[in-house]
Order: sequence, then structure tokens, then C-alpha cells
Amino acid sequence: MSPSGVITLLSDFGLADGYVAAMKGVLLQLAPGCSLVDVTHLVARHDIVGGGFVLASAVPFFAEGTVHLAVVDPGVGSDRPAVALRTSTAWYVGPDNGLLWRAAGADLVEGVAIEAVPGFDRPRSATFHGRDLFAPAAAHLARGEPLSDLGPGVTDLVQPDLPGPEVGSGRVSGEVLHIDHFGNMITNVALGDLPDGPGDLITEVGGSRIKGLVRCYADAKPGSLCVLIGSEGLLEIAMTEGSAADRLGAARRVPVVVIRTS
Amino acid sequence: MSPSGVITLLSDFGLADGYVAAMKGVLLQLAPGCSLVDVTHLVARHDIVGGGFVLASAVPFFAEGTVHLAVVDPGVGSDRPAVALRTSTAWYVGPDNGLLWRAAGADLVEGVAIEAVPGFDRPRSATFHGRDLFAPAAAHLARGEPLSDLGPGVTDLVQPDLPGPEVGSGRVSGEVLHIDHFGNMITNVALGDLPDGPGDLITEVGGSRIKGLVRCYADAKPGSLCVLIGSEGLLEIAMTEGSAADRLGAARRVPVVVIRTS
Amino acid sequence: MSPSGVITLLSDFGLADGYVAAMKGVLLQLAPGCSLVDVTHLVARHDIVGGGFVLASAVPFFAEGTVHLAVVDPGVGSDRPAVALRTSTAWYVGPDNGLLWRAAGADLVEGVAIEAVPGFDRPRSATFHGRDLFAPAAAHLARGEPLSDLGPGVTDLVQPDLPGPEVGSGRVSGEVLHIDHFGNMITNVALGDLPDGPGDLITEVGGSRIKGLVRCYADAKPGSLCVLIGSEGLLEIAMTEGSAADRLGAARRVPVVVIRTS
Repeated sequence: MSPSGVITLLSDFGLADGYVAAMKGVLLQLAPGCSLVDVTHLVARHDIVGGGFVLASAVPFFAEGTVHLAVVDPGVGSDRPAVALRTSTAWYVGPDNGLLWRAAGADLVEGVAIEAVPGFDRPRSATFHGRDLFAPAAAHLARGEPLSDLGPGVTDLVQPDLPGPEVGSGRVSGEVLHIDHFGNMITNVALGDLPDGPGDLITEVGGSRIKGLVRCYADAKPGSLCVLIGSEGLLEIAMTEGSAADRLGAARRVPVVVIRTS
Repeated sequence: MSPSGVITLLSDFGLADGYVAAMKGVLLQLAPGCSLVDVTHLVARHDIVGGGFVLASAVPFFAEGTVHLAVVDPGVGSDRPAVALRTSTAWYVGPDNGLLWRAAGADLVEGVAIEAVPGFDRPRSATFHGRDLFAPAAAHLARGEPLSDLGPGVTDLVQPDLPGPEVGSGRVSGEVLHIDHFGNMITNVALGDLPDGPGDLITEVGGSRIKGLVRCYADAKPGSLCVLIGSEGLLEIAMTEGSAADRLGAARRVPVVVIRTS
Repeated sequence: MSPSGVITLLSDFGLADGYVAAMKGVLLQLAPGCSLVDVTHLVARHDIVGGGFVLASAVPFFAEGTVHLAVVDPGVGSDRPAVALRTSTAWYVGPDNGLLWRAAGADLVEGVAIEAVPGFDRPRSATFHGRDLFAPAAAHLARGEPLSDLGPGVTDLVQPDLPGPEVGSGRVSGEVLHIDHFGNMITNVALGDLPDGPGDLITEVGGSRIKGLVRCYADAKPGSLCVLIGSEGLLEIAMTEGSAADRLGAARRVPVVVIRTS
């Protein structure tokens, strides 16, 4: 795998401070000419599960050999490991606290605990490893230098507390993983998890029962709740010209049950 | 016209999800090395008129041959056409729902309804054409490939519901098009629409009468309303060291009348 | 010093209008192929001190020869000077109103008052010098053209109203400079300003007394206030898994006193 020349960034740093720019300054200093793409910096503060979901939703669309730098890191400066990973299609750099699991966990080819970045000797602060450790490591990989330079191998990644759906006979029980900007409620139930059969699908969420699946938002009546398979391939509760999450007063982790009538 | 190597993006996707990054991943995969510039992703949800205004305010400042990708698309997945356009100075890609009118409508040289992008065969979701159709089409144009590859020609664009000002004798009646980050109220009245004559200009808006025109914000007294010709060449109601929109409790589409005293 | 190929941008323009994109269009038209990096565009409206702090926190991490374009400019169109500066490591372009002082003031090598940018003759609006004057000037420098082309020399910069800490015997009195996205309160007290001695450090702020210094956020008990030397090398009041600023109801410029017990 050779580097694509692209580095993505994801964090919970927000957009009002100089933190993201400081990371980009380091990246462009060590890997000049790379294209930097923000995934988001508006992950809720310290929300490892939410950050991991957004990261995993974006990475499949980048060229092979892209480096994904992700920092949601409440344990910065403690003994939580910093890792660099290689999958069959990309590199990842970030804290080993569950953040990288959804994107990289199932396809991990090689991993190291980052100890130091060869040639980078600026002193490391105890509070900003994004700038002082992860960005230099990401630039190292984007330049095509070996992963194994960064530290000793690791084989296990921390998994976030994120149960999959329970698939039963004629029903599947899951939960809301993420609520997007439009108030669409994206669940952990994939198309293949849905019960088979000739009857209608009924989705139960937040006290509402929603019948059937629509193909796109415009297929549902404005102002009514609908269920569809969203662009991530996951079951999604939506409202045409409105916010399903606002209507249902629903938050992440709300239970969702899908049954098929007989 | 040859490609400038720049692609701009505008949407109502917000900045907290992975949607914008997924589009950028596709763009950089298909047109490596392009410079990507965000116009904004904070268009109000489904606000075609507001998105079209912001787009048109930014595009004149890009090099000839830039590709502008704009997605405010409540009808995604329905039968609303997806279009790619060429003007005398730029390319545009987006839904044909009025969004592109203000920027491209008056200078349309060639247009097509996008059916498929040659060489791009990833399955198309019904809910995210920004990633699955518009981004591949924009990359196709940024690589210098022919517009006509993308689908059959179209000649008419959907126009948004956006009346021009009414110019009468000694007066012009318009409305507020856009309220910017500073609370400046930008109207659809251009410098050339203003009544001629020796008297004073009086601007009536939200129950206030504002006399005269100032040249720049600093020329008005802090905390008082003023009127000027803003950086888009349009009449603008502003307040030095304050927000005119907050003071007047005014929203978009509020009527504005300018008269010249005799 | 030769140009690094990177231009950074900072402003109080927000992210919802076309203003930042218009500046970037001009930059890429005049200096094609440059990498553009946003520091932030969410500086509070007209907050020269806050913008200057964020700028200074990011610039040390960019390669030598980077051009920093900063626009927080309530006096646009008045007679406040527009300046371009060279320090030993970077160029700066912006209004001379105190914004550039913290980043560039102590290391100023050469400065000019910008009068015109050679080869750029688009008419200059009275309200948007970011697009019509500062961006062309920044592109001029990023192309390696001489600073002296832009106008006559200046030697003094406007200083913002920003007192340093008062260092006394066994105590130092300062104030909060900036509150970041995490609610961390960054002060103007540097590590070297702290009183020496064998006793404990006590930080008094907003009616609270906080004992000692921790090394990183994870070293403090969740929900309790702590004090540390942050990634800028400045004393910072923080709360692990919470917001110190919310807890203390504290804003910028709140006094902070650090004493050492005997």
C-alpha cells in the first residue's frame, strides 16, 4: 500500500481554538503537499462512541493509502496507549480507547504502540498529543515511512461499549447509534438484520410504531415519520421536511425494535 | 475553458457528521490533487434560496474553470433532475431545484441532466446523491472530461421563488435576501436600482427610517443603524458594533423601501 | 526566507456566509497550488484580543515561510492602516489594530502599510478588505514577491490592551486570556512567572482556591477543578470530564492569583 497523499482529521476540539490548525501546521511541515480533509471537529466532548461512528461513516470513501488521524482523548497524558494501525486499505493514528474500533477493528493488519516519531524531537506536552505525537506519527505514515518505526507491535485494540443488534425470530432489537444534522436517527440495525417474510415491517421507537420502509426521504409525507435504509446501509428513522429526533424527543442509545407482521 | 484545479462545496449538511468528508473522499479519489474549498455547509436545512445566495456571492472570486458542487436537496431520490452546467467561466453540479439559478442562470452555456458518470460504478444510494452522483460528476469535470458524457442536454433551469425589486418613480421596493454572521441585512436592491435625484435617500425597513448612505461600517455612529452598498454591490442595512437584524427583529424576506426625498 | 506554500486564515466571519470562500478564491487565483489552512473563523465578532490569542497559539507550528492572513477588522474602510509584516519565521497580513501583536510584535523584522498590490486591480470595496486587499497581499507574499512592493515601511504596530501578569514576592497576579472549547481557562501566567519555594502553589480564581499543579487532565479527579501548565506553556484552570469555566461562571479577563504557601 502506498500513501494516497491525503490525511483526514477528526476530533472533539471544536472550531474556535487554534488546536486543529496547530495539528495541521505540524502535518504540513512534516508531510508538505499532503491534502488535509476534516472529517469533523464537532464530536461531542470526549464522546468516543459518537466519534468512532462518524469516522467509520467517512473512511470508506477515501482512496487506498489514506491516513486517518482521530483524537477524542480524555485520557491524554495518562498511560492509555497511543496507536498507529494499518488495515488492508488505510492507516489510522489515535488513542487506543475504542475510537478507532468501528473503522479499523475488523480489518486490522498491523498495529504499534507509538513511542516516538523518528526525526521529530520537539518536546511533548502532557495535554496535547494530537499536536505533539499523533500528527507527527500521521505525517510519518503519509510520507511512506514504515509503521514499525513508531514503536512495538500491538495486537489487541480496546473495544467501545457498543453492543450489536439482537436478531431473533421475526424481530430484531437494536438502538440508535447516531443522530445526524437533519435529526435522522441512524440505528445499529443493518439491512441484512431485518426479519424475512411476507408481512409488513413495523419499527417501534420512542413510543411510536412506523409501518413499512420508504426508499428516500421524498417518498414519505412531509411531517410524518418514516423508516429507510440510509446511506450507511443502516436502518434510519427520519421525517421528511422535519427532524425525527425532535419529534420523538429521542437521543442516542434509545432502543429500536423491528418486527415483521405475520 | 480548462479546469482550474479547484472544486468548491456548498451544502446544508452541517459540520458534525461524516457527509462532507465522504464527498471529499470521492472527489480526491477521482480527481487527485484538486484543491477543495468549502463555501459553507451551514445553509439552513433545505433552504434553497439562502444557499443559492451564498453560492452566488462566492463564485465570482474563483479562477475560471472552477467546479462548484452545491447540494441543498430535499428532493433527493425523487425525480427532480440532477444537473451539470457550464457557464462562460465555471462549471456547476447539483440538483435542479433553484439552488444554482442565481449563480449560473443568467450565463448558462450548456447543461445536462446527469444520468451516470463514466467509469464510476459504485452503487447509488437513494438518500445521498452528494456522495454517490454529484461528487463523481464534479470530479469528472475537474479532470477536464466532457460535460456531455454525463447525460442528455437540458436547456431550462428551475427558478427559485425570488422576486426582484420593483423600481418605481422616486422609489424602489425590495426585500431582505440574506442576513449575515454580523447581522447585516443584505437586500435585493442594487446600487443601480436606487432612485436618482438631488434629495436624500431614506430606507424604510422594520418600522425604522434610516437617512442617507454611509461608505463603510466605521463611518456610522456605534449602535446606530446605517445603510450602505455592501461587498456584493447590494444595499445593506447594518449597525456599527452591533447587529442590525437583532435591533430590528428582522428576518429574511422583510420588505425594504428606499425613497428619495424631493 | 522562502514561501512554504501554506497560507493560514483567521477571521470573525463565521462559517455560514460566502466571505471566507471569497477570500480563498482570490488566494487560489493569485497563488495557485497553495495549501490553505483555517485557523478559525469563529473569533467573537470584533474581538481583537481573543483573535490575537488564537492566532499566536497556532502559528509556531507552521513551517518557516508561511503567510498568516488575519482579519478581525471593525475599522474596515476607515483610516486604520492595513499592514504586511515579516518576522524571522513568517509573514503576516491584516489590519493594524492589535490583532497581529501577540503573534508578530516581538519578532518584527520588516513592516509595510499596504497601499496596493501590484497586478491586482479589481475595485476595492469599502467593507471587505479581507477579500479585496488582504487576500491579494497574502497571495503576493506566498508567491515570493517582495514585501516592499506593497507600500511604505512602518515600524510601530498598534498594541492591544492586554496587560501582562504582575509578578511579586511569593505571588503572581494575572488574568484569564482565553476560554477554550473544553471550558479550560488559559491565563497570561507562564510557568516562569510562578513563585519559587518549597511550599504548595495555591491558585485563586472566581472565589475558589485550587491547590497544587497536575501534569495532565487525567491526573485530576473527574469533576474537580485542577491547575496545570497547558499546551501553550501557560497556567490553565481545568476540570477533568467537565468545564472549569461553567463551574466557576468565569469569563475572559477574570483575575487569577497564584501564591506559594510558606
